[in-house]
Amino acid sequence: MTKKKVSDLMGVKNLLFPYLPVLVGANVDGKPNYITIGLVGWLCYDAVSVSVGHKQYSNAGIRENRTFSINQPTAGMVKELDYCGLYSGRRVDKSILFENFYGELQTAPMIHECPVNLECRVIQVMERSIHTVFIGEIASIYLHEAYLTEGILDVSKVDPVFFAPDKKQGKYSGSYWRLGEYLARAWEVGKDFRSDKKDEARS
Amino acid sequence: MTKKKVSDLMGVKNLLFPYLPVLVGANVDGKPNYITIGLVGWLCYDAVSVSVGHKQYSNAGIRENRTFSINQPTAGMVKELDYCGLYSGRRVDKSILFENFYGELQTAPMIHECPVNLECRVIQVMERSIHTVFIGEIASIYLHEAYLTEGILDVSKVDPVFFAPDKKQGKYSGSYWRLGEYLARAWEVGKDFRSDKKDEARS
Repeated sequence: MTKKKVSDLMGVKNLLFPYLPVLVGANVDGKPNYITIGLVGWLCYDAVSVSVGHKQYSNAGIRENRTFSINQPTAGMVKELDYCGLYSGRRVDKSILFENFYGELQTAPMIHECPVNLECRVIQVMERSIHTVFIGEIASIYLHEAYLTEGILDVSKVDPVFFAPDKKQGKYSGSYWRLGEYLARAWEVGKDFRSDKKDEARS
Repeated sequence: MTKKKVSDLMGVKNLLFPYLPVLVGANVDGKPNYITIGLVGWLCYDAVSVSVGHKQYSNAGIRENRTFSINQPTAGMVKELDYCGLYSGRRVDKSILFENFYGELQTAPMIHECPVNLECRVIQVMERSIHTVFIGEIASIYLHEAYLTEGILDVSKVDPVFFAPDKKQGKYSGSYWRLGEYLARAWEVGKDFRSDKKDEARS
């Protein structure tokens, strides 16, 4: 199998797919707005980042309030997810799409219908060529009890949405995907691998 | 449905699941080592972060060379993925697990068997309570041609692995999952949603 070095693929180098797209909430001009974001950073157990285009409507709102929210949609919300990525808050009023609520930070609107909401305080801002990376400390988490099993978030109940690039009629496009089947137990299946290796070494 | 505010769940606030776990490569004492990392940051089209525990074996290697690699495994590599998270490079030699190769940065070992490799140069280091966040600029991408469709990475060919937390016999545990079915076309399915909304407004 040939391994190909690719220096740049349509301006994109960050080819780890699929993404877990989320709805990022921010107050803009005092009103809730939601933007679909694929570039999310899992930085630590209490820190996360979202990357927003420099000229996007939400950018100024996050900058002004220094707060944002991350709202994880279900597969059943894929139309809303896509809609919030297609149309700017400058053109459409996204505050009417969901039941909005606020937490302790008061300026980070959150979506009641989403199974998970993270309310974040901006602690650092990094400017990159295309995006502003807003690094946030997670102030609060909100969970719908219906998506928990034994007090733990249950991904099979959440029914998450993934995004991956593809081509449609020769042009760059993308598609949404669902979570599939259970594969293996973490921190266990690798023990077998070690035994296999030992067996190989013995034989 | 009740929405529950959770201030802290077993020390974890970053409850966006599932993760896309990867194998992070680093030279430690001049030898390839690989560590399984769930905390990955998609920061920009050419920047990415990986968060490594302060005392983990790879941490010193990344710090010393200021390079690392991200290697995405397939579902068929789940044992190797789990193994690299279970055992420290201080105890086991992970340089023998895969066919290693190096790129232009010369000190970031990569895994030939993985469909995607990102070779990264550290541009910033953030210390958090539990993790060091290594922010990297992507120098090169390597792709196996077998995983492309029309020159684009095809997630259905990659057969990616996800990680999500759960409980086993009452204790915190985790499981690996596969990608599921195609759900909808991006930048299109949301257009229907807008029409629906207009129809509602008309009716």
